[in-house]
Amino acid sequence: MTEHDAVRAANLEFYRAFNTADFPAMDALWAREAPVLCVHPGWTPLYGRAAVMRSWQDLFANPEPTRLMVHDDRAFLYGDTAVVLCEEELPGGHLVANNTFIREAGEWRMVLHQAGPLIARPYGDRPQRPN
Amino acid sequence: MTEHDAVRAANLEFYRAFNTADFPAMDALWAREAPVLCVHPGWTPLYGRAAVMRSWQDLFANPEPTRLMVHDDRAFLYGDTAVVLCEEELPGGHLVANNTFIREAGEWRMVLHQAGPLIARPYGDRPQRPN
Repeated sequence: MTEHDAVRAANLEFYRAFNTADFPAMDALWAREAPVLCVHPGWTPLYGRAAVMRSWQDLFANPEPTRLMVHDDRAFLYGDTAVVLCEEELPGGHLVANNTFIREAGEWRMVLHQAGPLIARPYGDRPQRPN
Repeated sequence: MTEHDAVRAANLEFYRAFNTADFPAMDALWAREAPVLCVHPGWTPLYGRAAVMRSWQDLFANPEPTRLMVHDDRAFLYGDTAVVLCEEELPGGHLVANNTFIREAGEWRMVLHQAGPLIARPYGDRPQRPN
């Protein structure tokens, strides 16, 4: 498994935990030592593990949980940091998400999730291919 | 100057270049070697230097350029990567932005800009303080 594959696997585990409202898995996925940050769609940023984990607990407590499909996931490596950009498809529309991971205790662990609405595809119908 | 200060200075230089439509400064700010990514509000991601720089050229060519105020900028360091989250205040509303930098050739250079609309402040009137 390449590092890109390992990062994409961590990203998919994030969406598995999200879609099954698996709080222990979500909790395990986020970094323990490094600062963690989360920007839910339309929200102000959440800073720190306590605030981020509380937000997942709140979202998972919703009796009609959100289910989403993820596609066009692409991983980019910067040494011990990795960024995955992907599209999230929800019943109400599409989001663009950035999931950033760092290497911590030999694992790729999440330090940032940020998602915002996808409104337009300005340069054509499909996402841009890498140059 | 601490590393946090250096990263915040790079972030402010990004907004100076943006507000003055200074394309050479914007071009100089982005990484040369590492992959660069940009998610303008509502857009699909742009991958690679050519696509990202074309988008700045297009935005700067607008005869009524966007001017924005930046506040609540906070830098987080992950080794040779740094994330700055901040709020962008535009005439039409507020955005939350993530500007990610890496250390390249002895400088903090941008590898990612992502901005999306700020709609609500779910946990109170002001952004959360770090835990």
